[in-house]
Amino acid sequence: MQEDAVDESSEPKRRPGGRSARVYDAVVDATLAILLEHGYHGLTIRAVARTAGVAETTVYRRWPTPNHLTAAALLELAERDNPLPETGSLEGDLRALLGQIVALLNRPEVLRVVRSAAALDHRDDESVLAGKNAFFSSRFASATSLVGRAVERQEIPPDTDADLLIETLVAPAYMRALLSNRPLDQTFIEDSLRVALASVGRRCAD
Amino acid sequence: MQEDAVDESSEPKRRPGGRSARVYDAVVDATLAILLEHGYHGLTIRAVARTAGVAETTVYRRWPTPNHLTAAALLELAERDNPLPETGSLEGDLRALLGQIVALLNRPEVLRVVRSAAALDHRDDESVLAGKNAFFSSRFASATSLVGRAVERQEIPPDTDADLLIETLVAPAYMRALLSNRPLDQTFIEDSLRVALASVGRRCAD
Repeated sequence: MQEDAVDESSEPKRRPGGRSARVYDAVVDATLAILLEHGYHGLTIRAVARTAGVAETTVYRRWPTPNHLTAAALLELAERDNPLPETGSLEGDLRALLGQIVALLNRPEVLRVVRSAAALDHRDDESVLAGKNAFFSSRFASATSLVGRAVERQEIPPDTDADLLIETLVAPAYMRALLSNRPLDQTFIEDSLRVALASVGRRCAD
Repeated sequence: MQEDAVDESSEPKRRPGGRSARVYDAVVDATLAILLEHGYHGLTIRAVARTAGVAETTVYRRWPTPNHLTAAALLELAERDNPLPETGSLEGDLRALLGQIVALLNRPEVLRVVRSAAALDHRDDESVLAGKNAFFSSRFASATSLVGRAVERQEIPPDTDADLLIETLVAPAYMRALLSNRPLDQTFIEDSLRVALASVGRRCAD
Protein backbone atom coordinates (compact mmCIF):
# COMPACT_ATOMS: atom_id res chain seq x y z
CA MET A 1 0.00 0.00 0.00
CA GLN A 2 1.18 3.53 -0.75
CA GLU A 3 1.20 6.23 1.85
CA ASP A 4 -1.91 8.34 2.25
CA ALA A 5 -0.55 11.08 -0.03
CA VAL A 6 -3.09 11.14 -2.84
CA ASP A 7 -6.08 12.35 -0.86
CA GLU A 8 -4.01 14.93 0.95
CA SER A 9 -2.51 16.50 -2.13
CA SER A 10 -4.44 19.68 -2.73
CA GLU A 11 -4.84 21.19 0.74
CA PRO A 12 -2.55 21.77 3.70
CA LYS A 13 -2.58 18.92 6.17
CA ARG A 14 -4.20 19.80 9.50
CA ARG A 15 -3.72 16.53 11.38
CA PRO A 16 -2.80 13.02 10.20
CA GLY A 17 -5.74 11.60 8.31
CA GLY A 18 -7.82 14.65 9.10
CA ARG A 19 -8.82 15.82 5.67
CA SER A 20 -8.80 12.30 4.29
CA ALA A 21 -11.23 11.17 6.96
CA ARG A 22 -13.48 14.18 6.45
CA VAL A 23 -13.58 13.62 2.69
CA TYR A 24 -14.34 9.95 3.24
CA ASP A 25 -17.21 10.73 5.59
CA ALA A 26 -18.65 13.45 3.35
CA VAL A 27 -18.54 11.28 0.22
CA VAL A 28 -19.97 8.18 1.89
CA ASP A 29 -22.72 10.21 3.58
CA ALA A 30 -23.59 11.84 0.26
CA THR A 31 -23.63 8.48 -1.54
CA LEU A 32 -25.85 6.92 1.09
CA ALA A 33 -28.27 9.85 1.03
CA ILE A 34 -28.54 9.74 -2.77
CA LEU A 35 -28.92 5.96 -2.86
CA LEU A 36 -31.65 5.91 -0.23
CA GLU A 37 -33.53 8.82 -1.74
CA HIS A 38 -33.14 8.18 -5.47
CA GLY A 39 -31.93 4.60 -5.76
CA TYR A 40 -28.96 3.25 -7.64
CA HIS A 41 -29.93 4.78 -10.95
CA GLY A 42 -29.78 8.27 -9.45
CA LEU A 43 -26.19 7.73 -8.32
CA THR A 44 -23.55 9.58 -10.33
CA ILE A 45 -20.09 10.69 -9.28
CA ARG A 46 -21.05 14.23 -10.21
CA ALA A 47 -24.09 14.17 -7.89
CA VAL A 48 -22.04 12.68 -5.06
CA ALA A 49 -19.27 15.26 -5.46
CA ARG A 50 -21.76 18.12 -5.45
CA THR A 51 -23.62 16.82 -2.39
CA ALA A 52 -20.39 16.10 -0.55
CA GLY A 53 -18.89 19.48 -1.46
CA VAL A 54 -15.72 18.01 -2.94
CA ALA A 55 -14.18 17.97 -6.42
CA GLU A 56 -15.24 15.21 -8.80
CA THR A 57 -11.60 14.22 -9.21
CA THR A 58 -11.38 13.68 -5.46
CA VAL A 59 -14.22 11.18 -5.71
CA TYR A 60 -12.83 9.48 -8.83
CA ARG A 61 -9.41 8.97 -7.26
CA ARG A 62 -10.72 6.82 -4.46
CA TRP A 63 -14.00 5.49 -5.91
CA PRO A 64 -13.57 5.09 -9.66
CA THR A 65 -17.17 4.01 -10.35
CA PRO A 66 -20.65 4.29 -8.80
CA ASN A 67 -20.30 0.63 -7.84
CA HIS A 68 -17.32 1.41 -5.61
CA LEU A 69 -19.34 4.21 -4.02
CA THR A 70 -22.31 1.89 -3.51
CA ALA A 71 -20.16 -0.72 -1.80
CA ALA A 72 -18.68 1.89 0.54
CA ALA A 73 -22.09 3.34 1.33
CA LEU A 74 -23.65 -0.06 2.02
CA LEU A 75 -20.77 -0.89 4.34
CA GLU A 76 -21.32 2.39 6.17
CA LEU A 77 -25.06 1.62 6.44
CA ALA A 78 -24.26 -1.86 7.72
CA GLU A 79 -21.84 -0.51 10.33
CA ARG A 80 -24.33 2.10 11.52
CA ASP A 81 -27.56 0.12 11.53
CA ASN A 82 -26.27 -3.45 11.69
CA PRO A 83 -23.40 -3.36 14.20
CA LEU A 84 -21.99 -6.69 15.30
CA PRO A 85 -24.01 -7.75 18.36
CA GLU A 86 -22.31 -8.90 21.56
CA THR A 87 -25.00 -10.35 23.80
CA GLY A 88 -22.92 -13.01 25.54
CA SER A 89 -24.40 -16.02 23.77
CA LEU A 90 -24.37 -17.38 20.23
CA GLU A 91 -28.16 -17.58 20.19
CA GLY A 92 -28.50 -13.98 21.38
CA ASP A 93 -25.92 -12.72 18.91
CA LEU A 94 -27.48 -14.52 15.94
CA ARG A 95 -31.00 -13.40 16.89
CA ALA A 96 -29.84 -9.77 17.20
CA LEU A 97 -27.87 -9.91 13.93
CA LEU A 98 -30.78 -11.33 11.93
CA GLY A 99 -33.21 -8.93 13.63
CA GLN A 100 -31.11 -5.99 12.43
CA ILE A 101 -30.89 -7.36 8.89
CA VAL A 102 -34.65 -7.98 8.78
CA ALA A 103 -35.28 -4.43 10.05
CA LEU A 104 -33.04 -3.07 7.26
CA LEU A 105 -34.71 -5.20 4.56
CA ASN A 106 -38.12 -4.01 5.77
CA ARG A 107 -37.09 -0.40 5.04
CA PRO A 108 -38.24 0.24 1.43
CA GLU A 109 -35.37 2.64 0.69
CA VAL A 110 -32.80 0.08 1.87
CA LEU A 111 -34.45 -2.76 -0.02
CA ARG A 112 -34.37 -0.66 -3.16
CA VAL A 113 -30.58 -0.42 -2.87
CA VAL A 114 -30.27 -4.17 -2.23
CA ARG A 115 -32.45 -4.82 -5.30
CA SER A 116 -30.08 -2.67 -7.34
CA ALA A 117 -27.11 -4.65 -6.05
CA ALA A 118 -28.85 -7.93 -6.96
CA ALA A 119 -29.64 -6.66 -10.45
CA LEU A 120 -26.03 -5.83 -11.28
CA ASP A 121 -24.23 -8.60 -13.09
CA HIS A 122 -20.82 -8.91 -11.48
CA ARG A 123 -19.68 -11.42 -14.07
CA ASP A 124 -19.40 -8.77 -16.73
CA ASP A 125 -18.23 -5.85 -14.66
CA GLU A 126 -15.11 -5.80 -12.52
CA SER A 127 -16.29 -2.80 -10.52
CA VAL A 128 -19.53 -4.55 -9.55
CA LEU A 129 -17.56 -7.61 -8.57
CA ALA A 130 -15.19 -5.48 -6.50
CA GLY A 131 -18.06 -3.67 -4.82
CA LYS A 132 -20.04 -6.77 -3.93
CA ASN A 133 -16.93 -8.60 -2.80
CA ALA A 134 -15.87 -5.67 -0.61
CA PHE A 135 -19.26 -5.58 1.07
CA PHE A 136 -19.78 -9.28 1.71
CA SER A 137 -16.13 -10.04 2.54
CA SER A 138 -16.25 -7.35 5.16
CA ARG A 139 -19.57 -8.51 6.58
CA PHE A 140 -18.55 -12.16 6.67
CA ALA A 141 -15.21 -11.23 8.24
CA SER A 142 -17.05 -9.37 11.02
CA ALA A 143 -19.35 -12.29 11.59
CA THR A 144 -16.37 -14.59 11.95
CA SER A 145 -15.46 -12.84 15.18
CA LEU A 146 -19.00 -13.38 16.47
CA VAL A 147 -18.62 -17.09 15.79
CA GLY A 148 -15.11 -17.02 17.27
CA ARG A 149 -16.48 -15.74 20.58
CA ALA A 150 -18.98 -18.63 20.65
CA VAL A 151 -16.07 -21.04 20.10
CA GLU A 152 -14.19 -19.41 23.00
CA ARG A 153 -17.27 -19.88 25.21
CA GLN A 154 -17.22 -23.53 24.06
CA GLU A 155 -20.76 -23.24 22.70
CA ILE A 156 -19.71 -24.68 19.35
CA PRO A 157 -16.68 -26.68 18.10
CA PRO A 158 -13.53 -24.84 16.99
CA ASP A 159 -13.88 -26.16 13.44
CA THR A 160 -17.30 -24.52 12.95
CA ASP A 161 -17.55 -22.97 9.49
CA ALA A 162 -18.37 -19.37 10.41
CA ASP A 163 -19.23 -18.24 6.87
CA LEU A 164 -21.59 -21.17 6.37
CA LEU A 165 -23.33 -20.50 9.69
CA ILE A 166 -23.87 -16.82 8.91
CA GLU A 167 -25.00 -17.61 5.36
CA THR A 168 -27.49 -20.16 6.73
CA LEU A 169 -28.81 -17.50 9.10
CA VAL A 170 -29.20 -14.63 6.65
CA ALA A 171 -29.80 -16.13 3.17
CA PRO A 172 -33.55 -16.80 3.63
CA ALA A 173 -34.06 -13.14 4.61
CA TYR A 174 -32.51 -11.96 1.33
CA MET A 175 -34.47 -14.54 -0.66
CA ARG A 176 -37.77 -13.44 0.91
CA ALA A 177 -37.01 -9.75 0.44
CA LEU A 178 -35.81 -10.06 -3.16
CA LEU A 179 -37.83 -12.92 -4.60
CA SER A 180 -40.41 -14.90 -2.75
CA ASN A 181 -42.32 -12.16 -0.92
CA ARG A 182 -42.80 -14.28 2.18
CA PRO A 183 -43.08 -12.35 5.46
CA LEU A 184 -40.03 -10.95 7.26
CA ASP A 185 -41.43 -11.02 10.77
CA GLN A 186 -40.63 -12.35 14.24
CA THR A 187 -41.80 -15.89 13.41
CA PHE A 188 -39.42 -15.89 10.46
CA ILE A 189 -36.55 -14.70 12.66
CA GLU A 190 -37.14 -17.50 15.17
CA ASP A 191 -37.47 -20.12 12.41
CA SER A 192 -34.23 -19.00 10.78
CA LEU A 193 -32.47 -18.90 14.13
CA ARG A 194 -33.56 -22.45 14.91
CA VAL A 195 -32.29 -23.69 11.55
CA ALA A 196 -28.95 -21.89 11.94
CA LEU A 197 -28.42 -23.26 15.45
CA ALA A 198 -29.38 -26.79 14.30
CA SER A 199 -26.72 -26.52 11.57
CA VAL A 200 -24.07 -26.32 14.32
CA GLY A 201 -25.77 -28.90 16.54
CA ARG A 202 -27.44 -26.42 18.91
CA ARG A 203 -31.05 -25.80 19.94
CA CYS A 204 -32.71 -22.61 21.06
CA ALA A 205 -32.61 -22.21 24.84
CA ASP A 206 -36.33 -21.38 25.14
CA MET B 1 -63.18 -19.88 -12.13
CA GLN B 2 -64.86 -19.11 -15.44
CA GLU B 3 -64.91 -21.61 -18.23
CA ASP B 4 -62.14 -21.50 -20.79
CA ALA B 5 -64.15 -19.33 -23.18
CA VAL B 6 -62.02 -16.20 -23.41
CA ASP B 7 -59.01 -17.74 -25.12
CA GLU B 8 -61.22 -19.66 -27.53
CA SER B 9 -63.26 -16.67 -28.70
CA SER B 10 -61.85 -15.70 -32.06
CA GLU B 11 -61.24 -18.98 -33.88
CA PRO B 12 -63.19 -22.18 -34.37
CA LYS B 13 -62.48 -24.79 -31.74
CA ARG B 14 -60.67 -27.88 -33.07
CA ARG B 15 -60.58 -30.03 -29.95
CA PRO B 16 -61.18 -29.22 -26.27
CA GLY B 17 -58.28 -27.07 -25.07
CA GLY B 18 -56.52 -27.53 -28.40
CA ARG B 19 -56.10 -23.98 -29.56
CA SER B 20 -55.86 -22.70 -26.01
CA ALA B 21 -53.01 -25.10 -25.27
CA ARG B 22 -51.22 -24.27 -28.51
CA VAL B 23 -51.50 -20.53 -27.82
CA TYR B 24 -50.24 -21.07 -24.30
CA ASP B 25 -47.23 -23.06 -25.49
CA ALA B 26 -46.40 -20.59 -28.26
CA VAL B 27 -46.62 -17.55 -26.00
CA VAL B 28 -44.65 -19.10 -23.15
CA ASP B 29 -41.98 -20.40 -25.53
CA ALA B 30 -41.69 -16.97 -27.15
CA THR B 31 -41.46 -15.25 -23.76
CA LEU B 32 -38.78 -17.64 -22.56
CA ALA B 33 -36.76 -17.21 -25.74
CA ILE B 34 -36.92 -13.41 -25.53
CA LEU B 35 -36.10 -13.36 -21.82
CA LEU B 36 -33.11 -15.64 -22.19
CA GLU B 37 -31.78 -13.85 -25.24
CA HIS B 38 -32.51 -10.20 -24.43
CA GLY B 39 -33.33 -10.14 -20.72
CA TYR B 40 -36.30 -8.65 -18.97
CA HIS B 41 -35.91 -5.21 -20.49
CA GLY B 42 -36.30 -6.66 -23.97
CA LEU B 43 -39.64 -8.22 -23.09
CA THR B 44 -42.70 -6.51 -24.55
CA ILE B 45 -46.11 -7.93 -25.28
CA ARG B 46 -45.69 -6.81 -28.89
CA ALA B 47 -42.43 -8.77 -29.27
CA VAL B 48 -43.95 -11.84 -27.63
CA ALA B 49 -47.03 -11.73 -29.86
CA ARG B 50 -44.91 -11.39 -32.98
CA THR B 51 -42.55 -14.23 -32.02
CA ALA B 52 -45.46 -16.47 -30.99
CA GLY B 53 -47.43 -15.66 -34.14
CA VAL B 54 -50.56 -14.59 -32.24
CA ALA B 55 -52.47 -11.32 -31.93
CA GLU B 56 -51.36 -8.88 -29.22
CA THR B 57 -54.90 -8.92 -27.81
CA THR B 58 -54.61 -12.69 -27.38
CA VAL B 59 -51.54 -12.16 -25.22
CA TYR B 60 -53.08 -9.26 -23.26
CA ARG B 61 -56.21 -11.22 -22.41
CA ARG B 62 -54.36 -13.90 -20.53
CA TRP B 63 -51.12 -12.12 -19.55
CA PRO B 64 -51.93 -8.44 -18.97
CA THR B 65 -48.32 -7.36 -18.29
CA PRO B 66 -44.75 -8.48 -19.01
CA ASN B 67 -44.56 -9.55 -15.36
CA HIS B 68 -47.31 -12.09 -15.87
CA LEU B 69 -45.47 -13.38 -18.93
CA THR B 70 -42.22 -13.57 -16.99
CA ALA B 71 -43.83 -15.59 -14.21
CA ALA B 72 -45.33 -18.04 -16.72
CA ALA B 73 -42.03 -18.38 -18.56
CA LEU B 74 -40.02 -18.95 -15.39
CA LEU B 75 -42.48 -21.63 -14.31
CA GLU B 76 -42.11 -23.30 -17.69
CA LEU B 77 -38.31 -23.13 -17.37
CA ALA B 78 -38.53 -24.58 -13.86
CA GLU B 79 -40.78 -27.42 -15.01
CA ARG B 80 -38.50 -28.25 -17.94
CA ASP B 81 -35.09 -27.92 -16.34
CA ASN B 82 -35.90 -28.31 -12.66
CA PRO B 83 -38.46 -31.16 -12.48
CA LEU B 84 -39.30 -32.47 -9.03
CA PRO B 85 -36.82 -35.30 -8.34
CA GLU B 86 -37.99 -38.69 -7.08
CA THR B 87 -34.89 -40.61 -6.05
CA GLY B 88 -36.42 -42.64 -3.23
CA SER B 89 -34.80 -40.76 -0.33
CA LEU B 90 -35.08 -37.27 1.12
CA GLU B 91 -31.33 -36.81 0.88
CA GLY B 92 -31.29 -37.86 -2.76
CA ASP B 93 -34.28 -35.69 -3.64
CA LEU B 94 -32.86 -32.59 -1.95
CA ARG B 95 -29.42 -33.09 -3.52
CA ALA B 96 -30.98 -33.47 -6.97
CA LEU B 97 -33.28 -30.46 -6.50
CA LEU B 98 -30.47 -28.15 -5.37
CA GLY B 99 -28.18 -29.50 -8.09
CA GLN B 100 -30.74 -28.51 -10.72
CA ILE B 101 -31.20 -25.03 -9.22
CA VAL B 102 -27.43 -24.51 -9.06
CA ALA B 103 -27.09 -25.61 -12.69
CA LEU B 104 -29.79 -23.09 -13.68
CA LEU B 105 -28.20 -20.25 -11.68
CA ASN B 106 -24.84 -21.02 -13.30
CA ARG B 107 -26.36 -20.33 -16.74
CA PRO B 108 -25.73 -16.60 -17.38
CA GLU B 109 -28.94 -16.17 -19.40
CA VAL B 110 -31.03 -17.69 -16.60
CA LEU B 111 -29.28 -15.68 -13.92
CA ARG B 112 -29.99 -12.53 -15.89
CA VAL B 113 -33.72 -13.26 -15.68
CA VAL B 114 -33.49 -14.00 -11.95
CA ARG B 115 -31.62 -10.71 -11.45
CA SER B 116 -34.45 -8.93 -13.24
CA ALA B 117 -37.00 -10.59 -10.98
CA ALA B 118 -35.01 -9.56 -7.90
CA ALA B 119 -34.79 -5.97 -9.14
CA LEU B 120 -38.56 -5.55 -9.50
CA ASP B 121 -40.21 -4.04 -6.48
CA HIS B 122 -43.35 -6.05 -5.83
CA ARG B 123 -44.48 -3.66 -3.10
CA ASP B 124 -45.37 -1.00 -5.62
CA ASP B 125 -46.66 -3.15 -8.44
CA GLU B 126 -49.49 -5.66 -8.19
CA SER B 127 -48.46 -7.42 -11.38
CA VAL B 128 -44.93 -8.03 -10.07
CA LEU B 129 -46.38 -9.31 -6.83
CA ALA B 130 -48.74 -11.61 -8.72
CA GLY B 131 -45.94 -12.89 -10.92
CA LYS B 132 -43.50 -13.60 -8.11
CA ASN B 133 -46.20 -15.15 -5.96
CA ALA B 134 -47.35 -17.39 -8.80
CA PHE B 135 -43.83 -18.65 -9.36
CA PHE B 136 -42.78 -19.29 -5.78
CA SER B 137 -46.19 -20.57 -4.61
CA SER B 138 -46.09 -23.12 -7.39
CA ARG B 139 -42.52 -24.14 -6.67
CA PHE B 140 -43.06 -24.42 -2.93
CA ALA B 141 -46.28 -26.37 -3.51
CA SER B 142 -44.36 -28.87 -5.67
CA ALA B 143 -41.68 -29.20 -3.05
CA THR B 144 -44.29 -29.98 -0.43
CA SER B 145 -45.02 -33.27 -2.17
CA LEU B 146 -41.30 -34.11 -2.09
CA VAL B 147 -41.31 -33.56 1.67
CA GLY B 148 -44.60 -35.46 1.97
CA ARG B 149 -43.02 -38.55 0.42
CA ALA B 150 -40.20 -38.37 2.97
CA VAL B 151 -42.82 -38.22 5.74
CA GLU B 152 -44.55 -41.30 4.26
CA ARG B 153 -41.20 -43.12 4.28
CA GLN B 154 -40.93 -42.06 7.94
CA GLU B 155 -37.66 -40.29 7.28
CA ILE B 156 -38.91 -37.10 8.96
CA PRO B 157 -41.79 -36.27 11.33
CA PRO B 158 -45.27 -35.51 9.91
CA ASP B 159 -45.17 -31.96 11.30
CA THR B 160 -42.05 -31.04 9.29
CA ASP B 161 -42.39 -27.53 7.83
CA ALA B 162 -41.91 -28.29 4.13
CA ASP B 163 -41.63 -24.65 3.03
CA LEU B 164 -39.00 -23.92 5.67
CA LEU B 165 -36.98 -26.99 4.69
CA ILE B 166 -36.98 -26.08 0.99
CA GLU B 167 -36.19 -22.44 1.77
CA THR B 168 -33.26 -23.54 3.95
CA LEU B 169 -32.00 -25.69 1.09
CA VAL B 170 -32.24 -23.15 -1.73
CA ALA B 171 -31.88 -19.66 -0.19
CA PRO B 172 -28.07 -19.68 0.00
CA ALA B 173 -27.88 -20.53 -3.72
CA TYR B 174 -29.93 -17.44 -4.61
CA MET B 175 -27.91 -15.28 -2.20
CA ARG B 176 -24.62 -16.42 -3.74
CA ALA B 177 -25.87 -15.96 -7.29
CA LEU B 178 -27.42 -12.54 -6.72
CA LEU B 179 -25.28 -10.93 -4.08
CA SER B 180 -22.26 -12.49 -2.47
CA ASN B 181 -20.52 -14.03 -5.48
CA ARG B 182 -19.41 -17.10 -3.52
CA PRO B 183 -18.98 -20.29 -5.59
CA LEU B 184 -21.94 -22.39 -6.68
CA ASP B 185 -20.14 -25.72 -6.88
CA GLN B 186 -20.36 -29.27 -5.58
CA THR B 187 -18.89 -28.37 -2.18
CA PHE B 188 -21.57 -25.73 -1.81
CA ILE B 189 -24.29 -28.23 -2.72
CA GLU B 190 -23.08 -30.71 -0.10
CA ASP B 191 -22.76 -27.98 2.55
CA SER B 192 -26.28 -26.73 1.88
CA LEU B 193 -27.64 -30.27 1.87
CA ARG B 194 -26.03 -30.99 5.24
CA VAL B 195 -27.53 -27.81 6.74
CA ALA B 196 -30.99 -28.56 5.34
CA LEU B 197 -30.95 -32.14 6.64
CA ALA B 198 -29.71 -30.95 10.07
CA SER B 199 -32.68 -28.56 10.21
CA VAL B 200 -34.99 -31.59 10.24
CA GLY B 201 -32.76 -33.65 12.52
CA ARG B 202 -31.12 -35.75 9.79
CA ARG B 203 -27.54 -36.33 8.72
CA CYS B 204 -26.15 -37.19 5.30
CA ALA B 205 -25.87 -40.95 4.81
CA ASP B 206 -22.25 -40.81 3.59
